[in-house]
Amino acid sequence: MLEAKNPQKTDLEKLGEFGLIDHLTKDLPQTQSSTALSIGDDAAVLDHQGYQTVLTTDMLVEGVHFDLAYMPLQHLGYKAVVVNLSDVYAMNAAATQITVSLAVSNRFPLEALESFYEGVRHAATHYGVDVVGGDTTSSTKGMIISITALGTVVPAKITKRSGAQENDLLVVSGDLGGAYMGLQVLEREKAVYEVNPNSQPDLEPYHYIVQRQLKPEARKDIPNLLEALDVLPTAMIDISDGLSSEILHLCKASGLGCDLYEDKIPLDPTVIAACEEFNIDSTTVALSGGEDYELLFTIAQKDFDKIKGNPHLTVIGHMTAKESGAHLVTRANTKIALQAQGWNSF
Amino acid sequence: MLEAKNPQKTDLEKLGEFGLIDHLTKDLPQTQSSTALSIGDDAAVLDHQGYQTVLTTDMLVEGVHFDLAYMPLQHLGYKAVVVNLSDVYAMNAAATQITVSLAVSNRFPLEALESFYEGVRHAATHYGVDVVGGDTTSSTKGMIISITALGTVVPAKITKRSGAQENDLLVVSGDLGGAYMGLQVLEREKAVYEVNPNSQPDLEPYHYIVQRQLKPEARKDIPNLLEALDVLPTAMIDISDGLSSEILHLCKASGLGCDLYEDKIPLDPTVIAACEEFNIDSTTVALSGGEDYELLFTIAQKDFDKIKGNPHLTVIGHMTAKESGAHLVTRANTKIALQAQGWNSF
Repeated sequence: MLEAKNPQKTDLEKLGEFGLIDHLTKDLPQTQSSTALSIGDDAAVLDHQGYQTVLTTDMLVEGVHFDLAYMPLQHLGYKAVVVNLSDVYAMNAAATQITVSLAVSNRFPLEALESFYEGVRHAATHYGVDVVGGDTTSSTKGMIISITALGTVVPAKITKRSGAQENDLLVVSGDLGGAYMGLQVLEREKAVYEVNPNSQPDLEPYHYIVQRQLKPEARKDIPNLLEALDVLPTAMIDISDGLSSEILHLCKASGLGCDLYEDKIPLDPTVIAACEEFNIDSTTVALSGGEDYELLFTIAQKDFDKIKGNPHLTVIGHMTAKESGAHLVTRANTKIALQAQGWNSF
Repeated sequence: MLEAKNPQKTDLEKLGEFGLIDHLTKDLPQTQSSTALSIGDDAAVLDHQGYQTVLTTDMLVEGVHFDLAYMPLQHLGYKAVVVNLSDVYAMNAAATQITVSLAVSNRFPLEALESFYEGVRHAATHYGVDVVGGDTTSSTKGMIISITALGTVVPAKITKRSGAQENDLLVVSGDLGGAYMGLQVLEREKAVYEVNPNSQPDLEPYHYIVQRQLKPEARKDIPNLLEALDVLPTAMIDISDGLSSEILHLCKASGLGCDLYEDKIPLDPTVIAACEEFNIDSTTVALSGGEDYELLFTIAQKDFDKIKGNPHLTVIGHMTAKESGAHLVTRANTKIALQAQGWNSF
C-alpha cells in the first residue's frame, strides 16, 4: 500500500534533497528559548546558560523495529520521537530539541514522508520540543530512522543509572506489558489479513494495548511529579527492553542486587485478559515484553510516604547488596534469578 | 570480502546489543571538559557554561553514499566522523562530542564493526572530540551510519550562512575537485578488478586524490587560522555537495548574488592531470564534484589584506546584489548562471 503506484503520489526525485528537507520541515514550530538557530544552516545552535545538556540517540529500522503493515506512518513518526524523549526524561531532564534523520527507498512517495513528519510534528508539539535539524536521504531498502534528542537539567537533579543505594525502593510508573500484548494482537490480525484481505478486525476490545504499541507516550509527567512530591530519585532508567533487562542495568550500574516482587508488578486488566486469551504468562510479558516506555527508578526508603498511594507509581521491590544477586520473588514466595530477556535486535 | 564466511569471524548475535556497544566503545577516550557523563546511561550529559552548543547530524547509507568494494571500513568510520565535524567547523565552532549510530545486516561480523570503530576512534582522537553515545542495531540490508556532532562557540563568533553582505569577498580553503576525481579512479579500478581480480592497480600517481575521497579531513584549522588573522567571516558553509551548490546556499540564505571567477578556482596539479586523463572539464569537477569538505566563506573587503597570500585561502569571487544573480565568470570572460548540480541522493 506504500508503493508509488498511485498517480497522485509525488516522486522524491522531483523535489531533490534540499527541496525535500525544506518541504518537510517548513511547518515545524520553534518554542524553546534555548533554540538559538534551527534548521537551515550547517548546524543548529543551542544556548543553555547554567544548565547541562542531556543527549541521546536511537535508530529504528523497518523490518527490525517496526512493520509498516500495521504501523501507520504518522504513528511511527510519533513513536520514533517518543522513544528518544523517554531517554531524556529517564535522566530527570526536560526535553528541549530533537533532530530527525531519515533514509527511505524510492518505494516511498513524498506523501508517505509527509505522514511520517506529521507524526513527528504532533509529538514535538505535544512534548514541547523543537525539531532543529536532521538529514533526509535515500536507502537501498526500506526505511531507517535516526533521532537524537537533547534536554536540559540542573546538575544536582541529573538521575543516572548508577546512583541506587542498598535498601532503596524500586518504583515503576504506569503499568507494564501492554505494548507487547498489543503487538501480539497486531501480528495476529496481520496474519488473518494475509489469509483474507476482506476480514475486518475488531480491535476495540484491545484498544488500550494496541495504543500502547502503536502510539506509546513518554512519561514527561514523572520528573515533574517527583519534583512536586519533593522526591529525588537515586537512579532512573526507561523501560524500552522489558522490566527484567532494565532492572539488571540499574543493578549493574549501581553495583547492587535487588528483590522484585511478582505480585507487585502493575498490570492493566486489558493486559491480563489478553495474556489469558493468548495463553502467555503475564509476568513473563512484563519482565521481557518491552516498549512500554514507563520509568523505573529507585528512591530512598525515607521518601516512601511521599509517593505512597500515588496512582502513577508502584513500589515493586527494593535494592539489595550485590552479593545477594537480582531476584524475582514469585507469588509462591520462591526466588528466581532475574535474566535479561529483553529485546535483542541481532 | 566482508561476508562472515571466515571461521575466525565473530557473529554479532553472540554478543547481543548491550555487549556489542560495551565492546565497541570501551576504548574511546574522553577528553572534553564539557563531557559530564558519557556512554552507558539513557543519555549523555554536556555542560557548556557561557557557550552555545552547535548540533549537526548526517546519515550515510551503503550503496548510496559509500561502496565497501573500495572503501575500507576504518576509512569509512573516519570519514563518517569528518563529514559531521566539517559542519561544526563551518559554524566557526569547536567540535566537542559526537554520537555514532550504526545499523548493519548479519553479513557483517564483529571484526568489520571493530574496523569501523577503529576509524571512528582515530578521527575522534585526531580531532579531539569525545564519542558520548550512539546506538547499534541490525538492518535488513547493508550498513547505515548516523552521526550527530556537537560543538561550542561563543555567540559573537557563530558564522551562519545568512550573514554575507554585498561586495564581501568569497573565499575557499584548500583546493577543489580532488575527492570527485579520486572516486573516478576508484570506480575505474573497481571495474578493472571485476573483469580481472588478479590485476594490481598502481594508485601511487593518484595518491592525493584517492586520499581526498577515502580519507578526507575537516578544516578544523580554518576557524583557528581566521581567529589568528583577526578575521571574522560574515557567512560560512562547508563544501560537501560541490562549490556551485554551496555558493547558491550562501546566496539564497544571505539574499545576494555573486560573481565566481573560473580562473581563481584552486585546483591541485593531480586533479588537473586526472581531469585530462579522464577527459573531464576541471571547472565542472570543482563546481559539481563535492565531498572535498573545504570551507567556503565570505569576508568584508577591509579584511582582504589579512588573508592575502595565505597558502590555505583563495579569494574566488565576490558577493553582488540579489538582482545580479549568481554567475560564473569564465576564463573567456563570459558570464554563465551558476546551477546547483551538487550531489542528490534521490
